[in-house]
Amino acid sequence: MPDYAVVGKGLPKLDASGKAIGQSRYVADMSFPNMLHAKILRSPYPHARILNVDTSRARSLKGVKAVITGKDILPVKYGIVPFAADQHALCIGKVRHPGDSVAAVAAIDEDIAEEALNLIKVDYEILPAVFDPEESMKPGAPIIHEGVENNTSVRLIKNFGDVDQGFKDSDVIREDRYRTQPNNHAPIEPHGCISIWHPENKVTIWCSTQIPFFLRRNLAKVVGLEERDVRVVKTIVGGGFGQKIDMFASDVCATLLSRMTCRPVKVVINREEVFLSTRQRHPMIITVKTGAKKDGTFMAQHFTLIADGGGYNSTAPLVITLSAYFLMIPYILRNLRYEGAHVYTNKPVGGAMRGHGIPQARFAVESHLDQLARDLKMDPVEMRLKNALYVGFKHPAQYRINTCGFKDALEAAAKGINWKEKKGTGVGMAGSAFPCGVKNMSHIGAGGIVEINIDGGVNILSGASDIGQGTETVLAQIAAEELGTRYENVRVTAADTGITPLDAGTFGSGVTFRAGNAMRAAAADARRQLQEVVADKLEANPDDLVFRDDRVYVKGSPDKGMGFTDAIKYYRYLDKPMPIVGRGFYMPDAAEPTTLLKEDGNFSVAYTFMAQAAEVAVDKETGQVELNGIATAHDCGFMLNPLNVEGQLEGSVAGGLGMAFYEDQPHVDGEYLNPNFLDYKLPTSFEMPKKIVSLPIETFEPLGPFGAKESGEGNQVATAPAIANAVFDAVGVQIKELPLTPERVLKALEEKKGGAG
Amino acid sequence: MPDYAVVGKGLPKLDASGKAIGQSRYVADMSFPNMLHAKILRSPYPHARILNVDTSRARSLKGVKAVITGKDILPVKYGIVPFAADQHALCIGKVRHPGDSVAAVAAIDEDIAEEALNLIKVDYEILPAVFDPEESMKPGAPIIHEGVENNTSVRLIKNFGDVDQGFKDSDVIREDRYRTQPNNHAPIEPHGCISIWHPENKVTIWCSTQIPFFLRRNLAKVVGLEERDVRVVKTIVGGGFGQKIDMFASDVCATLLSRMTCRPVKVVINREEVFLSTRQRHPMIITVKTGAKKDGTFMAQHFTLIADGGGYNSTAPLVITLSAYFLMIPYILRNLRYEGAHVYTNKPVGGAMRGHGIPQARFAVESHLDQLARDLKMDPVEMRLKNALYVGFKHPAQYRINTCGFKDALEAAAKGINWKEKKGTGVGMAGSAFPCGVKNMSHIGAGGIVEINIDGGVNILSGASDIGQGTETVLAQIAAEELGTRYENVRVTAADTGITPLDAGTFGSGVTFRAGNAMRAAAADARRQLQEVVADKLEANPDDLVFRDDRVYVKGSPDKGMGFTDAIKYYRYLDKPMPIVGRGFYMPDAAEPTTLLKEDGNFSVAYTFMAQAAEVAVDKETGQVELNGIATAHDCGFMLNPLNVEGQLEGSVAGGLGMAFYEDQPHVDGEYLNPNFLDYKLPTSFEMPKKIVSLPIETFEPLGPFGAKESGEGNQVATAPAIANAVFDAVGVQIKELPLTPERVLKALEEKKGGAG
Repeated sequence: MPDYAVVGKGLPKLDASGKAIGQSRYVADMSFPNMLHAKILRSPYPHARILNVDTSRARSLKGVKAVITGKDILPVKYGIVPFAADQHALCIGKVRHPGDSVAAVAAIDEDIAEEALNLIKVDYEILPAVFDPEESMKPGAPIIHEGVENNTSVRLIKNFGDVDQGFKDSDVIREDRYRTQPNNHAPIEPHGCISIWHPENKVTIWCSTQIPFFLRRNLAKVVGLEERDVRVVKTIVGGGFGQKIDMFASDVCATLLSRMTCRPVKVVINREEVFLSTRQRHPMIITVKTGAKKDGTFMAQHFTLIADGGGYNSTAPLVITLSAYFLMIPYILRNLRYEGAHVYTNKPVGGAMRGHGIPQARFAVESHLDQLARDLKMDPVEMRLKNALYVGFKHPAQYRINTCGFKDALEAAAKGINWKEKKGTGVGMAGSAFPCGVKNMSHIGAGGIVEINIDGGVNILSGASDIGQGTETVLAQIAAEELGTRYENVRVTAADTGITPLDAGTFGSGVTFRAGNAMRAAAADARRQLQEVVADKLEANPDDLVFRDDRVYVKGSPDKGMGFTDAIKYYRYLDKPMPIVGRGFYMPDAAEPTTLLKEDGNFSVAYTFMAQAAEVAVDKETGQVELNGIATAHDCGFMLNPLNVEGQLEGSVAGGLGMAFYEDQPHVDGEYLNPNFLDYKLPTSFEMPKKIVSLPIETFEPLGPFGAKESGEGNQVATAPAIANAVFDAVGVQIKELPLTPERVLKALEEKKGGAG
Repeated sequence: MPDYAVVGKGLPKLDASGKAIGQSRYVADMSFPNMLHAKILRSPYPHARILNVDTSRARSLKGVKAVITGKDILPVKYGIVPFAADQHALCIGKVRHPGDSVAAVAAIDEDIAEEALNLIKVDYEILPAVFDPEESMKPGAPIIHEGVENNTSVRLIKNFGDVDQGFKDSDVIREDRYRTQPNNHAPIEPHGCISIWHPENKVTIWCSTQIPFFLRRNLAKVVGLEERDVRVVKTIVGGGFGQKIDMFASDVCATLLSRMTCRPVKVVINREEVFLSTRQRHPMIITVKTGAKKDGTFMAQHFTLIADGGGYNSTAPLVITLSAYFLMIPYILRNLRYEGAHVYTNKPVGGAMRGHGIPQARFAVESHLDQLARDLKMDPVEMRLKNALYVGFKHPAQYRINTCGFKDALEAAAKGINWKEKKGTGVGMAGSAFPCGVKNMSHIGAGGIVEINIDGGVNILSGASDIGQGTETVLAQIAAEELGTRYENVRVTAADTGITPLDAGTFGSGVTFRAGNAMRAAAADARRQLQEVVADKLEANPDDLVFRDDRVYVKGSPDKGMGFTDAIKYYRYLDKPMPIVGRGFYMPDAAEPTTLLKEDGNFSVAYTFMAQAAEVAVDKETGQVELNGIATAHDCGFMLNPLNVEGQLEGSVAGGLGMAFYEDQPHVDGEYLNPNFLDYKLPTSFEMPKKIVSLPIETFEPLGPFGAKESGEGNQVATAPAIANAVFDAVGVQIKELPLTPERVLKALEEKKGGAG
């Protein structure tokens, strides 16, 4: 590894202390003069026609300033993926899931707004509803969106190689069916925004969002403005995990209510609304059929995947391409068939959630592989190593793999958990891979701007959204490294469409890759401007100058130089000292994901690889699974900030644990039974395993900023299957439906006993 | 004049509608989580030694979080002009004027903070005080600052030509003595800030300030930080007029109290504090002696000027250079002697106020000239025209005059008031000149950054402070003109030291000149980046492209082109679309004003010239003066926004009226009798003259942005003397002390009667 001064160091996050001492200001903490508070009326029914909405009593309540319904909005549909746009900010004609938005009220305080909601009378005609995606696909099922055949809004069938021949050539073939549950992202901060419609017909919205430039695009579209007339300012985001990439009714209603009242309008939704009206991880039904040689070599695979999308599309085309394409990695698979479908049901809406389609698919595949290993009487780690992808493998789906630490990750995770000694006592392994540096659907790359100030301070502007994962910290490190100055002297302004350059947003773990590359280029551009002037002063060739440790000096002669701040002062006192402003850009050289529905292409600029090994103890009397330890090995490229990486690895385990053991949303007629933090069981620090061994596997990705890849999402993908496989290793039953509740374990043990008896 | 598309148009101010409908958010409207409120304890005495400050009772009051006194601050003095720094944020050792800051309290609300102030016990030893600057200069007067001889902190003596010979060659010599009053700027918004000390030992302060980069410098200095660790964000300023160029105790105390409490701290001072503890126009005592030929030619002048500075320096060196140098313009004066002094007294502090030293000096000179005209039996307008400066005049003080509309202004103002017909019935004329494009004391020029976005929107970044005068509007116009796009599509981010490039600040009517030139250069730089790419597409030479009316086309072939937004989209869809970011800079090619204390130099890049003619009726029984009309002619260069210019010209009359007739601050032992809006008589719309004729005199300043100069300050300078001269014309008495109250007019009439009787 090169010898860096700032990147590669475990520096504290820029936003850490403010959050720790309560200085950070979230949307909920913000106010404007004359601000109104809005609330949204939600559908109590899963599927119903709206016959009439009588808002007259609500309107006449003292303190109510405006009420809107579906009749007051433009009939323009929006969505993350433009061609899959299927949602109105307020329902027009009918509601499609419990929690669907029907009307909104702006009032002088929240209590009055709430009271006004109760005064709105909605006449519904209840329609037949469907909750199971397989039922929903059947002919004769209730139609959720007109014109969508079999309620299937996205269908993808992919064939690589010769699958039939592959199965013919196999010694062993097995097929399993898996089911995953709806997880909620459960950010600690519920969604909120404040919108101000300015008299010049421009809008400023402060919003807890992951993709300001998408919110800008969608909001402009549905309120009938040009994008340039909408300014989105990302506020501090108290957790996103993918749930805040969409625009929501709250954003649109706040904006329209502000237009009507000429006053700022704030909406902060409550926890129940987070559960019912935002997004969740798509529940999936997945069958995996694999053919293998006796030696464990995979010969063919056939997947069918049904994603339960709930009432709307949100990221539907993306979740289908992601889950499809990431079944083809990290193993060598030459013959593969994939059939995927995104299906509407009358339940809350699926969307991007940490891993976005891949955790579900990977749970199925990795669980299935351990079944296969048992059939083959092979060690599951051995089987994975045998089929592990490597750099240079000519991938049938056109993946270009520059770096691949998968084998190392498998071996490290196995070692981390003492695999060999503990095998048979309750250890499980799962591997995975993840994209990083995905292109987005609107041909938006990342820009960066770097200003060097007279006082040695550096202001950097980036459109990238820090949602708690440390984006701003890493961008500051990158700029400081490139300029050879101190990290502490870099000030980040980010994610304000009225100030900062374009950015693709925070999704797909591509922020560091995209925005990081852009910022490095911008910092280099700024440095060059200073370099040329300082070189004169130092009587050196500009290319011979070294910027490091807050100094500028001639390569090989550290004494022949000056302080960074002195260099700037020298520059500023020139006759015509232009502001030193560098600009940079990065556009991933990859296919736009939704185009993969039609033709193949390289999904991502780079790929990360990971393995997790879990160690459990299962109480056969109660079905209770104790997670004793987990080793998490992640090929994240060069670690720009090892402390952040460690945080991500451990956080991934926490997230994966929730998916594995605790989180679920049982429903009755589409209505969740537990839309609150009392009943929705998020793992807390008490549920964390006794031991987490974080094992970063450093590779040096030539296209990443300073060699970095991602560490934010991919790792979580492996947690649930590693645990499921450990349970299988412990007690010989494989739980094929998440979460692994004691009930399910007990039931499986009983069935096994029954089958054996 | 060139045919411009955006500049030169009377477009509405960007901030107008938000202010009109109450959407604008001032410091007083802002809040942060856990914010504390601070109040400052002020001295009741004009001059006293602080023996002891007992804060124990205040500290123990419930809800009080911190109390600080002079013992808690670094003993570092600050001031606008570094070498004249003489003020501590909280007094150390003694107080120097009523309202001087002694202690500060932070509490959970304003009431508790106020109550805590009452619990602080200060033991003072009262010292002899002095209130009249002439008394203060005498040996034996109380010493206000140790080591300052005769309490005179700045002294300037200038000689040009041969004054003695000039007087010898004169046919007539006369001398008059004038006195001006302390005016308060009386911004509708009192000073306020919110300061947050971050745990990393960095500060962010939101402040209603005119010069963010000066506040940054001073605040960093007194709290012991590097400048880069202080971020100043200018909030919407509800009026400044020079009063908000300084840093105040409130800014420092909020910051230190935040450091102590780890919580945001807000201070908004009250109206009485604005009067006692901020700044005011320096009261002055001025003698003018002029020698002239019979034909009216000025042969020599001798000025003595004493500026009453109150307890501290603030802008002392500047007010002295400004009043000195602007006595030498707009008339031809080859022989001139100036003796100026800035003198401490135990009264509230003088500072920059609209015109900054020049209104006082000009009142004296212009009044005196009408006396001289009477002595010479000349028409005052004729006399002024005879001596009017012109382009090409080799100025003894090294002024470089590129454009000069002074004669035109005199003639236009005279015509505007029907001078010839009305002469002798109560008309008065006064002329003036003003700098524009002054350099500041810290070698800070103006920078500009222009980003062109994918959606055709343009974000511009400027460090310049809009304080209500329309800076942001004009910068948006300049960028739009240079880019050939729509004004409405330009979004301005300004005056945030954490984001925007360096700027000298809002003072001396140089904002449009400095920041406007910088922004024009930045926009041209951005345009060039687009131009090169679009030229390829249009198969044209880049230099042949015209950017105008939201289109880009080939010169002479308007059809061969494309929309501005299409051009950007074309650019953005290139393989490697860098953000389009232009940068520009402007450093005035003029002397730094305070260096003029030592050696001559060109004061300003450009100069404006103005004349006002007033028409009055005087009630001899009551002394009441009725202002029937005023014509205000101003050579402001090219009018970038005629609506703004008109607003400035009319606003100048309002300001001038206050100085002429109403505003004064009588005191008893340094304590003002009327520090509130009930007793301090600001003119309202009812006091405005029946008729204001605004007469912009357009010249084309080659160094100004699109030919512009200033219109914000200079014009106000002429109002008071024009009125005084009209009174003289009406009833033959000249009032030599402002304001022209009915009492003073009556007294003068009685004295005249007595003298004649």
